[in-house]
Amino acid sequence: MEKVLHTLYHKNKVYCKQGKVASYIPALAKQDGEKFGVAVMDLSGKFFAVGDVEEKFTLQSISKVFTLMLAIIDKGQEYVFSKVGMEPTGDPFNSIVKLETMNPSKPLNPMINAGAIAISSMIKGKNNGERFNRIRGFLEEIIGEKITFNEEVYLSEKETGNRNRAAAYFMKDVGIIEGNVEEVLDLYFRHCSLEVNCIQLAKLAGMLANQGVSVITGKRMVSKEITQLVKSFMVTCGMYNASGQFAIKVGVPAKSGVGGGIMAVVPNKYGVAVWGPALDQVGNSIGGVKILEDMSKEFDWSIF
Amino acid sequence: MEKVLHTLYHKNKVYCKQGKVASYIPALAKQDGEKFGVAVMDLSGKFFAVGDVEEKFTLQSISKVFTLMLAIIDKGQEYVFSKVGMEPTGDPFNSIVKLETMNPSKPLNPMINAGAIAISSMIKGKNNGERFNRIRGFLEEIIGEKITFNEEVYLSEKETGNRNRAAAYFMKDVGIIEGNVEEVLDLYFRHCSLEVNCIQLAKLAGMLANQGVSVITGKRMVSKEITQLVKSFMVTCGMYNASGQFAIKVGVPAKSGVGGGIMAVVPNKYGVAVWGPALDQVGNSIGGVKILEDMSKEFDWSIF
Amino acid sequence: MEKVLHTLYHKNKVYCKQGKVASYIPALAKQDGEKFGVAVMDLSGKFFAVGDVEEKFTLQSISKVFTLMLAIIDKGQEYVFSKVGMEPTGDPFNSIVKLETMNPSKPLNPMINAGAIAISSMIKGKNNGERFNRIRGFLEEIIGEKITFNEEVYLSEKETGNRNRAAAYFMKDVGIIEGNVEEVLDLYFRHCSLEVNCIQLAKLAGMLANQGVSVITGKRMVSKEITQLVKSFMVTCGMYNASGQFAIKVGVPAKSGVGGGIMAVVPNKYGVAVWGPALDQVGNSIGGVKILEDMSKEFDWSIF
Amino acid sequence: MEKVLHTLYHKNKVYCKQGKVASYIPALAKQDGEKFGVAVMDLSGKFFAVGDVEEKFTLQSISKVFTLMLAIIDKGQEYVFSKVGMEPTGDPFNSIVKLETMNPSKPLNPMINAGAIAISSMIKGKNNGERFNRIRGFLEEIIGEKITFNEEVYLSEKETGNRNRAAAYFMKDVGIIEGNVEEVLDLYFRHCSLEVNCIQLAKLAGMLANQGVSVITGKRMVSKEITQLVKSFMVTCGMYNASGQFAIKVGVPAKSGVGGGIMAVVPNKYGVAVWGPALDQVGNSIGGVKILEDMSKEFDWSIF
Repeated sequence: MEKVLHTLYHKNKVYCKQGKVASYIPALAKQDGEKFGVAVMDLSGKFFAVGDVEEKFTLQSISKVFTLMLAIIDKGQEYVFSKVGMEPTGDPFNSIVKLETMNPSKPLNPMINAGAIAISSMIKGKNNGERFNRIRGFLEEIIGEKITFNEEVYLSEKETGNRNRAAAYFMKDVGIIEGNVEEVLDLYFRHCSLEVNCIQLAKLAGMLANQGVSVITGKRMVSKEITQLVKSFMVTCGMYNASGQFAIKVGVPAKSGVGGGIMAVVPNKYGVAVWGPALDQVGNSIGGVKILEDMSKEFDWSIF
Repeated sequence: MEKVLHTLYHKNKVYCKQGKVASYIPALAKQDGEKFGVAVMDLSGKFFAVGDVEEKFTLQSISKVFTLMLAIIDKGQEYVFSKVGMEPTGDPFNSIVKLETMNPSKPLNPMINAGAIAISSMIKGKNNGERFNRIRGFLEEIIGEKITFNEEVYLSEKETGNRNRAAAYFMKDVGIIEGNVEEVLDLYFRHCSLEVNCIQLAKLAGMLANQGVSVITGKRMVSKEITQLVKSFMVTCGMYNASGQFAIKVGVPAKSGVGGGIMAVVPNKYGVAVWGPALDQVGNSIGGVKILEDMSKEFDWSIF
Repeated sequence: MEKVLHTLYHKNKVYCKQGKVASYIPALAKQDGEKFGVAVMDLSGKFFAVGDVEEKFTLQSISKVFTLMLAIIDKGQEYVFSKVGMEPTGDPFNSIVKLETMNPSKPLNPMINAGAIAISSMIKGKNNGERFNRIRGFLEEIIGEKITFNEEVYLSEKETGNRNRAAAYFMKDVGIIEGNVEEVLDLYFRHCSLEVNCIQLAKLAGMLANQGVSVITGKRMVSKEITQLVKSFMVTCGMYNASGQFAIKVGVPAKSGVGGGIMAVVPNKYGVAVWGPALDQVGNSIGGVKILEDMSKEFDWSIF
Repeated sequence: MEKVLHTLYHKNKVYCKQGKVASYIPALAKQDGEKFGVAVMDLSGKFFAVGDVEEKFTLQSISKVFTLMLAIIDKGQEYVFSKVGMEPTGDPFNSIVKLETMNPSKPLNPMINAGAIAISSMIKGKNNGERFNRIRGFLEEIIGEKITFNEEVYLSEKETGNRNRAAAYFMKDVGIIEGNVEEVLDLYFRHCSLEVNCIQLAKLAGMLANQGVSVITGKRMVSKEITQLVKSFMVTCGMYNASGQFAIKVGVPAKSGVGGGIMAVVPNKYGVAVWGPALDQVGNSIGGVKILEDMSKEFDWSIF
């Protein structure tokens, strides 16, 4: 794999020049669009890695996968899915139209922003500090080391996140969010601003590939059933409005974030992380999607 | 498997009483809602079957899976997906809202009615007779025997299918459908009215489980790549507006039809067919979904 | 008035160069965008006219005002408004989204295409010939002379009118249209293809200004109540998606058509007709809207 | 008029029993649904009044008419309508769907909540105190006396107004609202909570009937042009989703509020106020709409 990975890395790095880094906040806009890294970990903990795999980037939407698992642990599936739907959507990730037009009014799934904000409101804790530590601690326990936090990104997202604020107040109005809206949003912006590098992200992915048991520590973090549930969401709605296309061309559960990271899972085989902050038009790492297509074909990863 | 299947069959048959047979045309309305059958074929051609597995029912939307494969063979992926999208949708299967509001205007995927009608317009043939024979012949070649056609259902669908007609004329207006609209609709209603029983449907599913090679005849029908493509559509949008939920609870590619059939595929393992004309609220066989949940758990079928 | 009208005519004729003639069918596309005419008739039958006021153009959507009156005469207000709404809409004139999303499903008002097609299905007559003669005869009786019909436009609209066809089949599906859909559409395309010149159109407008009595023949054509009803629709939704703006800037009931005609009514004072086939972006005569703004200000026509 | 008014009052008072008082906040819910009053003022200042015409109620959405006038005075028509549209809408008053789906994104008109909130952000003043005094002072100058403020309603609306908050943050995100969102909302909730009785409301209406000059003080408050503009908005979108129907059945500019008030204007003739807190399904005073229908027919008030 080592050799093939190097070849595919250099073949696909050039796509990064065709993408654009996220520009809605300065902290993301200043990322270097030519950075590119890929890391693959097998279930024995062996790593294959090329490129910028030690540099940190914010999790952004990738964090939604982990808060969903915690919400299910904390509140149970029945409660969680009474507030948030299970269905994919053809609408943009930040759309609020369906909140109004669906009956009953609820976000279609936990991977769009509205759904993920509702999920954030379900994390246990006496206050936001406790809740945030619970999320961060969960990630740290999976990979067996500390996770950093990007305060600049957090503050910036919080200040400019008015579209998310609109969705949250709408959900407050219809009873989907129960607590204080600004507090829920604060937690959401916080967990989006947690930082990892490709090595760490591959370890997080590895836990999902390994059906809930950390490859690093050997500790069971969640039930197999919950990992299958989140992996099915990753397939149907993990890659924004290109989820269907990604399922066709790559065929493995994956979740991307506007920080340029993609966490992909080859069930029972590999945890995969790609990072390239240059994004395509729907908001996925442009080089990241390309190299995953090639890797899936080369190593026959499709789950279908 | 035999014994477990019998147990699960009797456990889940009772759910049929809670569903309703499709009533929008008389030919479907007169189906017996208590009928229930399930058939599993492994890739050696060995069968496990319980219940009403020899009775015929119309394919309805299950036929969309096969016309999609033929359209890709006839026109190529690039052309097909220039006219029809690849993304799942939270809108109902017969919705036409997105046709108008998406830019560019195209049906979101080939599994909703509008998308499947567009796909029907791409099947090769000098006339509708040839095109219909091509679809029917493709199915017959997979299972190695003749397939019947329900003329009563066809005529009834054709007469009452004005919602589909609306979608088709809209697509004609925006250039998605190129030929004669009524002819395209005629072909669509025809292939929806092809009939199979559970045994036959399991053989059709088996070809997809077997990555494109008929289990019955050993003949390659389509490329592995095309079967993976259609299986990914089955996961993201094969079960109407409960596709996300089905992916979570069952975790295998499946396609249902309002005739009460469900074709499920356990990649590299089994072709599965369930039939129970009593439907749940989104239009899937109510007992069929339930027994597939149980079978998936029992035999660990989830692809995630 | 004569002199002011000449001044305003020449001031506003120049705007015609900024518009574009309707191009969706060849028969309309070959109109001369520099043609411009305006005719005002007072309630004694006295005329003030400038420009191309003797040239014929097709009524197009202006005909909707008259079919609405006939439908109310034939079926009564209660029936008509059980099938078609009374409310303005921010959606485009040919939108079908609201047909699907409103509950109960009905076209929002009789001035959008879907609503007008539904209205066409309510005109009395044993066959389309009788129904068409009833509409044409109604117009002829108002102005006391024959009205011509543009067969080329009719055939062309009929052939290309697939967006309208989509709306009609949708309405058939939900029970708004009762008869044969193609027959209803045929009648709709026919009455849109009736021709008038500005002089004739001012006479039609005059009947509405005169509360239902033809200024030319002195005959009562409809009740005062029905004329007030259609004039209120003209104010709230007569000028496509610029109806609100037109109400603000001109302030009189008006209905425009893509043939370039605008029929405006100054209640109890004037029937007004403008024709200029060069259209603005929403589909109204660009010079026509401009000169009506000026005339309304100059002669203090606003009803508000 | 006196006598007819009494007859119509008693005829229509019974409808109040079929309506329901607004219940989304306790302060409104405790209103007595059987209260009913109507006041008509001619342009000489002469009053005709029956029923509960001295009791105070909150202006609610009626205040939108006056803030629109002030915003135009403060910022000019061009600026105001670069941020807020001029077109009526078939969507509910509190809908935010169009904010997302329209391109460019702006509220369709100043009478729906989103539009009125945007308008509130345009009122001049160093702080909210100044801005609120400017609105209140404007009303007081029209009627020549003090206007009260209902603090209980204001606090309650502010606490529960999360749907409006959602709309406001969305508009902040797309650049329609420039200032601090919570401050803008505070001003909006404040001016909705100003109180009048029917006598006072008829005086406010009288200024609009009198083309901008207060009937009470003789002072010109706004230009004739601005009053015509707001009256055209009242016709196309003043009565929520029954504006079209009201235009047909009553035919005069009017604006209603969920407090149960309706301000109607018979141009050049009368200022009219009705109050009945029992509302119909779209949110208009049920008895109020009924009596206005009768009065319009009896006195031939329709402007069409």
